[in-house]
Amino acid sequence: MARASKREEIAQAALEQFRVRGFTATGISDITAAAGAPKGSFYNHFASKEESALEALSRYADGLRFDMLDTPGRPALERLRAHFEFLGADTVDNGFARGCLAGNLGAELADHSEEIRSAVQDGFQRWAMYIRQVLAEAQEAAELDAALDVEEAALFILSAWEGTLIAARAGKSAAPFDAFFRMVFDVLLR
Amino acid sequence: MARASKREEIAQAALEQFRVRGFTATGISDITAAAGAPKGSFYNHFASKEESALEALSRYADGLRFDMLDTPGRPALERLRAHFEFLGADTVDNGFARGCLAGNLGAELADHSEEIRSAVQDGFQRWAMYIRQVLAEAQEAAELDAALDVEEAALFILSAWEGTLIAARAGKSAAPFDAFFRMVFDVLLR
Repeated sequence: MARASKREEIAQAALEQFRVRGFTATGISDITAAAGAPKGSFYNHFASKEESALEALSRYADGLRFDMLDTPGRPALERLRAHFEFLGADTVDNGFARGCLAGNLGAELADHSEEIRSAVQDGFQRWAMYIRQVLAEAQEAAELDAALDVEEAALFILSAWEGTLIAARAGKSAAPFDAFFRMVFDVLLR
Repeated sequence: MARASKREEIAQAALEQFRVRGFTATGISDITAAAGAPKGSFYNHFASKEESALEALSRYADGLRFDMLDTPGRPALERLRAHFEFLGADTVDNGFARGCLAGNLGAELADHSEEIRSAVQDGFQRWAMYIRQVLAEAQEAAELDAALDVEEAALFILSAWEGTLIAARAGKSAAPFDAFFRMVFDVLLR
């Protein structure tokens, strides 16, 4: 039991450190220090920093609240907007810092770690599928132009979101979020 | 003269190494080795790795060919499309690797280096201004809905581009580029 709990603490600390520092800048000792564990204990639970990043990605995805997208009771496009407002609040509340772990690890490691690249891609695919389903529901409810290619739109909206987070962090500003919501909901999905 | 030329070689090697490896993963010795220079010589020309990254950003921006955007003779939206096709070809030709140095340094360092964050932000602002001017020209030529807020549209298109590069690298795929061109030019700017 104690062992399982220490693994949990190290895994959570790794997620937090990767979000704050990025992958390469995070040392194993940053993770174990944040978890209040001896440095050597990291390798009792993870084979490598890369393995802990794969688990961090999975834990991060669990916090993206995809369930907000497929909970009925609100119009589909309202749910999509609420999803991105929820995600944006995390970056705003952190002083326009951190952004999206999947996008950050993708930008930093896609060219260098095949395992992390593949995990980021799987996460993007799953996320885009949820967005596509919401857009298809909006089309069925005649909330959205039936001619829109919802697969391409979903992929594009997700890419736009990832870039919006980088621009908001670079500018320490909400302007990129405002532009995202205006252009996606008032123009692209009008 | 020899000294100026060595500085040039180190500056170009730094740009290349930051594009290939990212900032934190690039060691001074990676830069000097790529430049064929002794490691200690780096500090004859740059006070820090950060200073060389600021120069790399400036050199990178010089290669973005903003002049393609304001050369008359083609319809404004055609110029905008050609600009992004030119930039996308760089990532495709590199096997869906590298992406945009400004976006990559922004994602990696916006929360950690005020100088690099500020330089990335200046680069984004300048780039968005060029895009906004092309969109305004398109409106004047009645190529584009006069009701579109070109300032927000420019910011959004730039964010979408940055995210598209990450998605293309994560998926080693042109699908995010296809979605970008379809959604921006056939839907947003129709």
